[in-house]
Amino acid sequence: MNTSRTKLTRLPKRGAHDAETIYPILDAALVCHISYCIDGQPFIIPTAFCRIEDTLYIHGSVGSHFFRELAKGVHVCVAVTFIDGLILARSAFSHSVNYRSVVAFGKSRLVEDEAESWLALERITEQIMPGRWADTRHPNASEMKKTMVIAIPIEEASAKVRTGGVNDDPEDLALPYWAGVVPLSLTYHTPVPDEKRIKDVPLPDYLKG
Amino acid sequence: MNTSRTKLTRLPKRGAHDAETIYPILDAALVCHISYCIDGQPFIIPTAFCRIEDTLYIHGSVGSHFFRELAKGVHVCVAVTFIDGLILARSAFSHSVNYRSVVAFGKSRLVEDEAESWLALERITEQIMPGRWADTRHPNASEMKKTMVIAIPIEEASAKVRTGGVNDDPEDLALPYWAGVVPLSLTYHTPVPDEKRIKDVPLPDYLKG
Repeated sequence: MNTSRTKLTRLPKRGAHDAETIYPILDAALVCHISYCIDGQPFIIPTAFCRIEDTLYIHGSVGSHFFRELAKGVHVCVAVTFIDGLILARSAFSHSVNYRSVVAFGKSRLVEDEAESWLALERITEQIMPGRWADTRHPNASEMKKTMVIAIPIEEASAKVRTGGVNDDPEDLALPYWAGVVPLSLTYHTPVPDEKRIKDVPLPDYLKG
Repeated sequence: MNTSRTKLTRLPKRGAHDAETIYPILDAALVCHISYCIDGQPFIIPTAFCRIEDTLYIHGSVGSHFFRELAKGVHVCVAVTFIDGLILARSAFSHSVNYRSVVAFGKSRLVEDEAESWLALERITEQIMPGRWADTRHPNASEMKKTMVIAIPIEEASAKVRTGGVNDDPEDLALPYWAGVVPLSLTYHTPVPDEKRIKDVPLPDYLKG
């Protein structure tokens, strides 16, 4: 998964093109950013997604301009980014962040096969909350009619990962500035039940902890 | 800040074009996604940034393909996205997320004025960690020479925000599935001092709490 579009010219030691690095980053994300071009003008849309083998899937309204554009089959770029920590160096120049990111390229395709659409919707739901699909009312015919599923077969992809600590120049180490890492993570807070509930349903196991 | 590029066709009640909505979302972000096109091929790069008035600034290496492309002056799209909560509805179709997002459009410009570059670098550092610029060694001439600063004057921008709870159809409210919101937030963990420190510097106030 490495051609000129994903060749890393800066800091190549941070780059990877193997599925073992790329897939876990994609699979951990709640949202991706997708871009496409119309007459040289780039557009970006953030959206939920899932990965099945080497294809990404997104879903949206059949009335959406964005989805109607992608249904034509266009070149897209998909990015997933996690910021895992702030690297506060003694020099401003050496400031950085720890991160995991993937950039993938492919051509969008309208999914017309019902089974493929259904599986994509299941996996998109599961990507947001594993265990949820089996614990929800599945789409009916009218809802499926309003929903467009787009596939993006990954033609190329690359991952970039930075981990570790501060990389100040040796001559900066004695400077009187605090230096170190501020770790960051996404916190899932206590689930808040819907006020409009008619009966109390116990919190499912997949939402505990 | 509203033309055809940012007209919202879906759920227009969630859209806004006023600076009072857009700026706080931009100003809270650690990273943005920037896309541009080369011969109809979209590219996305995640990067740190700052906003000064109605201009976004990014910085990078003079050796970066991405920055050299933006130095030419090209159409870019910038996206900032926060996911604030998972909306787990009784129906799969009504699942959603609470979010704040901004999409902005502009043409990139290489910053050649030294004072403008310097201010951008200060603000980018402050965007990552307010209070940090005054507590770090500032860039020297050699570092400035390796750094490219790009300005992106915002020509158009729109924000989309979803808040609140589950919007299940009335006929789904009695279904035996748990429904509600899982709030999400980014957590800043206890700072970890650099192992390579020569002397202990007390944790600065801006990193406490």
